[in-house]
Amino acid sequence: MVDNAAGIRLTNNARPATHEVTARDENGDEVVTSIAGEHPLTLYFDKRELVTLMTLGGAPEYLALGYLRNQRLVRLASEISAVQVDWETNSVAVTSVQLANTGITFWESDTSGGGRANARMQKRTVTTGCGQGTVFGDLMDEIDDVQLSDATELTEPVLQEVMANVRHHDTIYKQAGAVHGCALCANAGDQRGDILIFVEDVGRHNAVDAIAGWMWANRVDGDDKIFYTTGRLTSEMVIKCAQMGIPFLVSRSGLTQMGYDIAQRVGITMLGRCRGKHHLLFTGGHRFRREPGSTTEMA
Amino acid sequence: MVDNAAGIRLTNNARPATHEVTARDENGDEVVTSIAGEHPLTLYFDKRELVTLMTLGGAPEYLALGYLRNQRLVRLASEISAVQVDWETNSVAVTSVQLANTGITFWESDTSGGGRANARMQKRTVTTGCGQGTVFGDLMDEIDDVQLSDATELTEPVLQEVMANVRHHDTIYKQAGAVHGCALCANAGDQRGDILIFVEDVGRHNAVDAIAGWMWANRVDGDDKIFYTTGRLTSEMVIKCAQMGIPFLVSRSGLTQMGYDIAQRVGITMLGRCRGKHHLLFTGGHRFRREPGSTTEMA
Repeated sequence: MVDNAAGIRLTNNARPATHEVTARDENGDEVVTSIAGEHPLTLYFDKRELVTLMTLGGAPEYLALGYLRNQRLVRLASEISAVQVDWETNSVAVTSVQLANTGITFWESDTSGGGRANARMQKRTVTTGCGQGTVFGDLMDEIDDVQLSDATELTEPVLQEVMANVRHHDTIYKQAGAVHGCALCANAGDQRGDILIFVEDVGRHNAVDAIAGWMWANRVDGDDKIFYTTGRLTSEMVIKCAQMGIPFLVSRSGLTQMGYDIAQRVGITMLGRCRGKHHLLFTGGHRFRREPGSTTEMA
Repeated sequence: MVDNAAGIRLTNNARPATHEVTARDENGDEVVTSIAGEHPLTLYFDKRELVTLMTLGGAPEYLALGYLRNQRLVRLASEISAVQVDWETNSVAVTSVQLANTGITFWESDTSGGGRANARMQKRTVTTGCGQGTVFGDLMDEIDDVQLSDATELTEPVLQEVMANVRHHDTIYKQAGAVHGCALCANAGDQRGDILIFVEDVGRHNAVDAIAGWMWANRVDGDDKIFYTTGRLTSEMVIKCAQMGIPFLVSRSGLTQMGYDIAQRVGITMLGRCRGKHHLLFTGGHRFRREPGSTTEMA
């Protein structure tokens, strides 16, 4: 069991991140090479099967928690009693406090939000159906309620520090490729610029969700944080970051038109194509501060 | 309407691939930069809403067709009468031959496979639920039925030609990033090594599905083709390629453990990390032929 501020009973069942296979290179020589793990993980919430995620398995408990959070099936971390991962059956069982205390599942009770969640499940069936779909439908309806904090600003030196920290960190990618990495970084206090948690996964959204789950379990707010992703800034990435309450979204990749439109709409500070000293600031420039030499200038 | 061998009535409504936004670079200078389009496209099949795909919109008709094919909701291209994309409503309406001829929808009739498709939709609801899920559940059951042709082999010079052709082709990626590209290449006849169709999309699976749709509409078989993707070789990528009957899967990215396991199981010839002269041959070496100088040697 893993200590966490929310007092959720969490197993600690990460899978090995990589394993080795033998390939043949362009010279016909045998090469032993690392490849990223990929495992199906079926998520049960209060005994109902919700989804099968294909995951690296590096943070499966947080992934399950963050999935429920980012799908907005559960509103509060305090509604969750336990998250138990079992790789014998490739499953993760999430138990609500209500079920643990009363024997009544989340789904059976309206007071737990079960009615709302049932409706949401129904809607998803239609709008997303399968692997490719997004939860776009209601996400757009809810995005306008998001208020991002203006209390902190991101400075160029802190951005550089985040980039340097990330470069040292994405170990599975360097070893095996085929994964995306996400980092949650501090933007205040002594830890400013430090990585608080770094998650890699074969699925871009899994890595985001695992960070959302970690934040819930550890009662960490998004207000004074920076979210870094190796992945592209698509609509869903921007929406999830905003819903986690994080005002800063940084990527080494490019962005899409809808990612841009939503970022503008929600006022998030979004930087893309960050490599080395280079970056492009796309939206939310009021929270970004360049400090060339001693002058201070708002982008 | 677009000519095609299957005689399907196809609109020709691609969206502009990129548009321009103004960003600010690390020097605080304004930079006009291209970003990739991203649009929701809701797929209706015989009046039933199936899914909302987030897409670049470069080949929306083929995407819709390939989605129905790769989800195995429809078995034959000859069952489809029309695919009509309307960006005013961000929708694509697919009409079955049965509906066009008899007024009875695909879903209402068992002879059309509607019963089977209904069951599949039901199953997906449970196993995949939302944006992150995969169609893994039944795909694995069906993958063992796939027989890939051993009639053609891939030679090193043809591989080099494919790589060179692809390098000249991925224009949206070069301009705006944030997209994945897939190409279907010939591996026989005068066109050997040529790109037959190249599709880029913000979603990795959309690009694959669009190629599957193009193959259906043009009655193109997979047997003597090579499938190239910029994306990672995950389980789903390998499964889809195998189901399209294509014996050769080539990527410039890495692979995952399950991608590897499935590739071995289905006997596909899979090459990853192809960049410049380099590649790694992972599985299905019996169809790959190196020709260093005048000697011939099987990997």
